[in-house]
Amino acid sequence: MMPAAQRPVRLALLGGGRGSFIGAVHQAAAQRDNRFDLVAGVFSRTLEKSREQAFLWGVDPERAYASHEDMFRAEAGREDGIEAVAIATPNDSHFPIARAALDAGLHVICDKPMTATLEQARQLATQVEAAGRAFALTYTYTGYPMIREARARVAAGVLGAVRKVVVEYPQGWLWQPTDESNVQAAWRIDPERAGKGGCIGDIGVHAFQLLEHVSGLRVEELCADLPRLVPGRTLDDDCNVLLRLEGGVPGVLIASQACPGERNGLRLRIYGERASLEWSHAAPGELRILTPDDRVEIVFAGAASLSPTSLAATRLPVGHPEGFVEAFANIYTDFAQAIRTGAPATEVPGADEGLRSLEFIERAIASDAERRWLPFVEKTA
Amino acid sequence: MMPAAQRPVRLALLGGGRGSFIGAVHQAAAQRDNRFDLVAGVFSRTLEKSREQAFLWGVDPERAYASHEDMFRAEAGREDGIEAVAIATPNDSHFPIARAALDAGLHVICDKPMTATLEQARQLATQVEAAGRAFALTYTYTGYPMIREARARVAAGVLGAVRKVVVEYPQGWLWQPTDESNVQAAWRIDPERAGKGGCIGDIGVHAFQLLEHVSGLRVEELCADLPRLVPGRTLDDDCNVLLRLEGGVPGVLIASQACPGERNGLRLRIYGERASLEWSHAAPGELRILTPDDRVEIVFAGAASLSPTSLAATRLPVGHPEGFVEAFANIYTDFAQAIRTGAPATEVPGADEGLRSLEFIERAIASDAERRWLPFVEKTA
Amino acid sequence: MMPAAQRPVRLALLGGGRGSFIGAVHQAAAQRDNRFDLVAGVFSRTLEKSREQAFLWGVDPERAYASHEDMFRAEAGREDGIEAVAIATPNDSHFPIARAALDAGLHVICDKPMTATLEQARQLATQVEAAGRAFALTYTYTGYPMIREARARVAAGVLGAVRKVVVEYPQGWLWQPTDESNVQAAWRIDPERAGKGGCIGDIGVHAFQLLEHVSGLRVEELCADLPRLVPGRTLDDDCNVLLRLEGGVPGVLIASQACPGERNGLRLRIYGERASLEWSHAAPGELRILTPDDRVEIVFAGAASLSPTSLAATRLPVGHPEGFVEAFANIYTDFAQAIRTGAPATEVPGADEGLRSLEFIERAIASDAERRWLPFVEKTA
Amino acid sequence: MMPAAQRPVRLALLGGGRGSFIGAVHQAAAQRDNRFDLVAGVFSRTLEKSREQAFLWGVDPERAYASHEDMFRAEAGREDGIEAVAIATPNDSHFPIARAALDAGLHVICDKPMTATLEQARQLATQVEAAGRAFALTYTYTGYPMIREARARVAAGVLGAVRKVVVEYPQGWLWQPTDESNVQAAWRIDPERAGKGGCIGDIGVHAFQLLEHVSGLRVEELCADLPRLVPGRTLDDDCNVLLRLEGGVPGVLIASQACPGERNGLRLRIYGERASLEWSHAAPGELRILTPDDRVEIVFAGAASLSPTSLAATRLPVGHPEGFVEAFANIYTDFAQAIRTGAPATEVPGADEGLRSLEFIERAIASDAERRWLPFVEKTA
Repeated sequence: MMPAAQRPVRLALLGGGRGSFIGAVHQAAAQRDNRFDLVAGVFSRTLEKSREQAFLWGVDPERAYASHEDMFRAEAGREDGIEAVAIATPNDSHFPIARAALDAGLHVICDKPMTATLEQARQLATQVEAAGRAFALTYTYTGYPMIREARARVAAGVLGAVRKVVVEYPQGWLWQPTDESNVQAAWRIDPERAGKGGCIGDIGVHAFQLLEHVSGLRVEELCADLPRLVPGRTLDDDCNVLLRLEGGVPGVLIASQACPGERNGLRLRIYGERASLEWSHAAPGELRILTPDDRVEIVFAGAASLSPTSLAATRLPVGHPEGFVEAFANIYTDFAQAIRTGAPATEVPGADEGLRSLEFIERAIASDAERRWLPFVEKTA
Repeated sequence: MMPAAQRPVRLALLGGGRGSFIGAVHQAAAQRDNRFDLVAGVFSRTLEKSREQAFLWGVDPERAYASHEDMFRAEAGREDGIEAVAIATPNDSHFPIARAALDAGLHVICDKPMTATLEQARQLATQVEAAGRAFALTYTYTGYPMIREARARVAAGVLGAVRKVVVEYPQGWLWQPTDESNVQAAWRIDPERAGKGGCIGDIGVHAFQLLEHVSGLRVEELCADLPRLVPGRTLDDDCNVLLRLEGGVPGVLIASQACPGERNGLRLRIYGERASLEWSHAAPGELRILTPDDRVEIVFAGAASLSPTSLAATRLPVGHPEGFVEAFANIYTDFAQAIRTGAPATEVPGADEGLRSLEFIERAIASDAERRWLPFVEKTA
Repeated sequence: MMPAAQRPVRLALLGGGRGSFIGAVHQAAAQRDNRFDLVAGVFSRTLEKSREQAFLWGVDPERAYASHEDMFRAEAGREDGIEAVAIATPNDSHFPIARAALDAGLHVICDKPMTATLEQARQLATQVEAAGRAFALTYTYTGYPMIREARARVAAGVLGAVRKVVVEYPQGWLWQPTDESNVQAAWRIDPERAGKGGCIGDIGVHAFQLLEHVSGLRVEELCADLPRLVPGRTLDDDCNVLLRLEGGVPGVLIASQACPGERNGLRLRIYGERASLEWSHAAPGELRILTPDDRVEIVFAGAASLSPTSLAATRLPVGHPEGFVEAFANIYTDFAQAIRTGAPATEVPGADEGLRSLEFIERAIASDAERRWLPFVEKTA
Repeated sequence: MMPAAQRPVRLALLGGGRGSFIGAVHQAAAQRDNRFDLVAGVFSRTLEKSREQAFLWGVDPERAYASHEDMFRAEAGREDGIEAVAIATPNDSHFPIARAALDAGLHVICDKPMTATLEQARQLATQVEAAGRAFALTYTYTGYPMIREARARVAAGVLGAVRKVVVEYPQGWLWQPTDESNVQAAWRIDPERAGKGGCIGDIGVHAFQLLEHVSGLRVEELCADLPRLVPGRTLDDDCNVLLRLEGGVPGVLIASQACPGERNGLRLRIYGERASLEWSHAAPGELRILTPDDRVEIVFAGAASLSPTSLAATRLPVGHPEGFVEAFANIYTDFAQAIRTGAPATEVPGADEGLRSLEFIERAIASDAERRWLPFVEKTA
C-alpha cells in the first residue's frame, strides 16, 4: 500500500549551524517536498551546538554528532540508519566527507564546488563512477524551472545551433575591505580556506556550470582576467573570461563580488541561429525568447505551454512566485527520485560537472597568471 | 534547556487533498520554519484518501480523520493532541470548523474569507474575542516582507499623510466559460459554494484587505461595479470600485478573473503628501518609493536598511528570491509566536480584518445592485 | 517635376512664446518631416516678444503679429499667405481663434481640449463639418506608433470583442500648493482660465480620448469622483471614474496631477475575449500582448511585423527610440497629408472626438457633483 | 538686436539620399533646435537625385551638388556660402571630404568612424589641431542627457574611483547571410567599403568610445576575440574584448550584429568604489545608481536634481520621452555653440576621440589575429 518510490529518504546533514546561510537552505530544500526525513547530522563543530540545532530542526539530539566519522559509524549500526548525506560544510571538507560517505555506501548530495582541488575532484569522480550511488551537486540555478525550460528548448533545437553565449554573475557584498567579523566573507577571501580561487571559485563556477549545462556545449579554450578590485586582496574578487566552446562558439563570462550595489544578478543569454534566450535571476520565473522579427516573448513558470521538465519543477500556479529554496528543492527531489528509482537524475549536475568546474577554476587561474589563451584540458589529456 | 518558545506547535490541517492548491501551500508554509509539527488532519472527504495524503506528508495515518468532529473528539483525548488547527477547506465550511475548533480550545489559522456570510463573520469575531486563543487569517500578501516594509513606512509617516490609494488584482484564469472539470474554477463560479460574491469574494477581498492593512485607513464609502465579463456567468468575474477612506481619502480598487493573460498581478500604490509607494506581486521582493523630485528608489527584501519588521520576514540574503510560500510561512511563524508567547501577532490579520472583508463583500454587492455610492456600515451601526 | 502632394504647407503658429511647453512642441513637430514651412505667427502677447521668437525660429519678423485678427487680415492679402494655422494658446482662446481661422478659409490644427466649454465645442464641430477644411486635434498619444498598432489590432479583431478597458494617467507635478510663479501650473488650477475641470480637463480628457480612440467603443455611462488632494484647491487635481461603454463593457479611468513622484505615466490596458493589450508611456515604443496561455509578447516600434499604419508613423529602425515630438509630428504629418490630398486623416482626432471630450468633462463634473452614475449624453440628446 | 550667438549656421550635408538612415538623422538633428540652416548639399551620387532630395528638404536645388569638390568651389564664391559641413557618407569618404572641408575653412561635423584607416585618422587629427575650426564626431550616445549625467557624476567623484567597466552593444539585424539588396547591410560586411573591421568598426567603436568618454579612463591593454557568427562572413560580426584601463581597472566590451532578436541594446555599467551606474539604450531617459546598501535609485531625464549639463540636453519636462534624434541634436547644438562662441564643446567627441577609436579598431584586430593581449599603443609611441 505504501508506494515505495515515495518513501522518504533518511538524510543526514553536515553543516547548517547558526549563521550558516547554505546549510539552512539545504535543510529547507530537503523538507520542501516531503521526500526526505532529516534524522541525523553534524550541524556544528561542537556537540553541544550541534544538538541545539538538532532540537530546532526536530532531529533526535542523540543523532546529532560531533564529526562525520562518528556519525557514519553510529548510523551504520542502526536499522533505521541514514541512507543519504548532504554536505554543506566549507569547501575544503567536501572531499574527505564525500569519500567517507561513499565508502559507507551512502548516497551523497554536496554543495559546490565538489572539492577544493582538481586532484581531489578527479579522485572523487572516479570513486563516484565506481560506487553506484546517487551523487548530486547543488548548483542551485539548475533547479529553477525556467533554466530547465531554457535547457529543454536549446536541446530541442528551438534556437537552431547555438552561436554565442554570455553569462554574468555580478555581486557586490564584498565591495569593501572585509570585516573579519563577517563569517560568510572571511573564509571566502582567505586562500587557506577558499582554495586558490576567490570569485572564480565561489561564483565564477556557478556561471561556468550554468553556461555548459544549458548550452549543452563544452568550453575548449579560455582567456581569463582575474582582478583584485579591492586593494589588499590576495584572491581575485572579480573575473572576466573570454571563451571558445565546441565548434568555435564564442562565449563571455563575467563575475564579480565587489561591484557595489549588485545583489545576486546571475544572468544568462544564449544566442542561436534562429532565436535567442535570456534568463535573469532577478526575475527567475521568467524566460525571454527573442526572435529575429523583433519580438520578445516572455514565458512564465507554471504556464501550460512549458516543457514537462519545467512544469515538473513548479509547484504553484502561474503568477505565484517560487524562489531560491524551491530551485534548491528541485535538485533534492530529483536526488530522492534517483535514489528510489535507481534512474539517473538527468537535470541534476553530477560528478562530471563537478570535475569540469574544478578544471575551469584551475585553467582560469593559469590563464590569468600567464596572461594568455589556454586550451581547456580534459581530464584524459 | 529546551527553549519553550521555540517548541513546535502540534498542528492539524483541514484540506490539502490531491488537486488542492491552497492546502498544499498551508502544509509547506507551516513546516517552512520548523515551528509546527503537522500531526493530524482531515485531508480529504474520504478516510482512505485522507490517509493516503497523511502518508505523503509523514503524518501518522491513525491521525488522519474523516471529519473535523471526529478529529477534535479523538485528539482531545490524547496527551500529545493537537494545539492548533489550520482551515484550508472551501469557504462555506470555515465557520462551523472554526467555531468547533475554538470550542475545543484550539488556536485557529484560517484561509480567507473568514466565513461565507457576514452574519457568520459577526458571530465568529465575537467568539474569537471571547476565546483568548490565537486566531489568524492567511491573507497571504500581508506576509511578504516588502508589504510589511510598506506598512511600516506608512505608519512611520515616511509618505506624510496618505492622500490616495490604488489597488489592482487582475487575473485571467477564468477568462472563458468554465469547464466543470476544473476543480479550482468550478466552485468559485457556483453561487451555492462560493457565497454571494464571485471575483469580489475571491480576490477583491485580498485587494481590499491589503489596502486597509497597509494604508492604515478604513474605507467609509464605496461605489462598486461588478460586471460579468464572460457571458452566462451568474456571479461577478470582475470588479471595479471607487472608494473614500477616512478623512475623505480617495481610492480605487480594480480586480478581475477574466482578463486574458493576466497572471496574478496584485499591485498596490499608496500616494502620500510627500512621497509614494508601489509594490507589485510580479516582483514581490521589491518596493518602489517615488519622490516628488522625480526619483524612484527601489529597495530589496533583505537589505540592511529595511525595517526590523521586514527583515524578520526574510530568511535569505538580498538577491536570493523568496516567494509565495515564504510569505505564507511568515504568517504561520507569527501565529506560532503568538501561540507560544501569548502576545498578539501585530502583522497578522485577525478576526477584525476578517469581518471587515465580509462587510466589504456585502456592501460592494449592494452598491453594484443599487448602482450608487453607499456608506461602509460598521458592525456597530 | 515638383510633387504637389509633398509641397510644404505654409503654417502660422499661435503660442510658443518663451516658457511655453506645448508651443515649442508644435514648432518642432511641424518641422520634423519637412511638410510645413512655419512662415508666420502670434508667438507672444506683445509684438516685440513675438518678433524675438520669430527670429529664433527663422520666421520673417514682419510676419510676427500681435493678434490673430491682425495676422489673418495681413496674410489674406499675400500671395504666399498662410494655408493653415496651429493653435497652441491657453484653452479659453481656442474657440475664437479656430472660428476665425475657419472663417478665413484656413486649415486648423489645435491643441486639446478643443474649446473651453461644451457649448463652444458644439458650435465649432458644426462649423468644421460645414467648412470643408482639414481640422486636427493634437491628442499627442494617438500619434505614437504603438498606439496606432494597438488600435489597428483591436479593429482587426485580434483580441476578439473588447471586454474591459483600464486607462490611467498619473502625474505628480502639482503635488503641493502651487507656486504662482509656476506659469504652467498657475493657469491650470485657476477656474477662470482652465475652465470648470482641473485634472479632468487637463489630462483626464487625454485618458478618455485614448480609451475611446483605441477601443473603438463609446462611453455610455459614468460615475466620477473628482477629489482635491491638495488642501485649498478649488478645482479637482485627481479623478477616478467608473465607466460603462457600448455593449455594457466596463471601464476604469484614473488620473491625477498630485501623486508625488509620478511623472507622466499614461497607461492603457484593453482586455478582449481572447487576448489583451498593454501600453505604457514610460516605454512608448513597446506594446505588450497578453495571451491566455500565459505568454506576454512584446513588439517594438519599427518591427517589420507591425501594421502599415504603425510603420508609417515610425522613422527610425527598431531599437532607435523616438519620443514625444515624433508622436506629435505624426499628427502634423497626417494633417499635411489631409490638406494636400483632401482625404480625411483617419488616425487623427477631429472635431467629433473634440466634442466627445468636452461632453466627458461636463458629465464627469456633473456625476461627481451629484455623487451618482450618469448617462453620457450624446450631442443629439 | 539679433543675438549673433544664436544666428543659425549655414550648413551643407553630404549624404542623406533615399534609403539613407543616418543622413536623414543628421538632417533632422541639425534642424531640431533651429541652430542650423541647411542650405546646400551633396545628397546623392547623381545630380538629379541630389536635387530631388533638396526639394524634399526645402533646399534651393541650385545648391544641390554632384560632388563635394563642386560644392566647396561654388559655395566659396557666394556671400551666403556654407559655414559648416556635415559628413554622413560611407566611411571611406570621410577622410578626403573632411580634409577638403577644413582646407576650405569650414567647420566639420562627421559621422563615426572619423576615417577608414588609422593612418588617415592621424593625419586628420593633426590637421584639425592646426585648423582652428570646430570639429565634432556624431557619437550619438554621448548626446543622451543621461549619458551626460553619468559622465558628470563619475567626474564629480560620486562613485569614488572607478573600479570596473562593462559595456555591451548587441544587435541582431545581420543575423543571417546578408541579402545584397539590403543597402545598409551590404557595405558593412564588404571589406572593400567597410574597412578592416566589421562589427568592431561599426558598433564596437561606439561601445569603446562611450566607455572611455563616461569613465574618463583610457584603455591601456586589450585582448580581443572577433568571431564570425554567420558562416561565410569575411569580416567579424561579433566582438568580445577584455580590457585594462588606466590604473589597472578591468573592463569588458561585448558587441554583436548577429544575435537574433537583439535590437540596439547598448548598455553601460560603471562600478566605483562606493556606488555604481547603469544606463541602457532601451530606456535612454533613465539612469540607475546602485548603492552598497542594496538600493537602486532611478533618476529621469529632465528631473530638477540633475546636473546642468544633463538638463541643458533635455528639452521636455520629465516624463515626456526624447529619443535618438534629440541625442543627435544635442551634439549638433553644441557644435553650433562652439562655432558661434569659439569655445570648445566639452561634451562632444572631437578628433582625439576619433583617433582613439581608429587605434582601438586596429589593436583589436591585431589582438584577435595574434590571439593575445596587446598594449593599446598611443599615437606618440
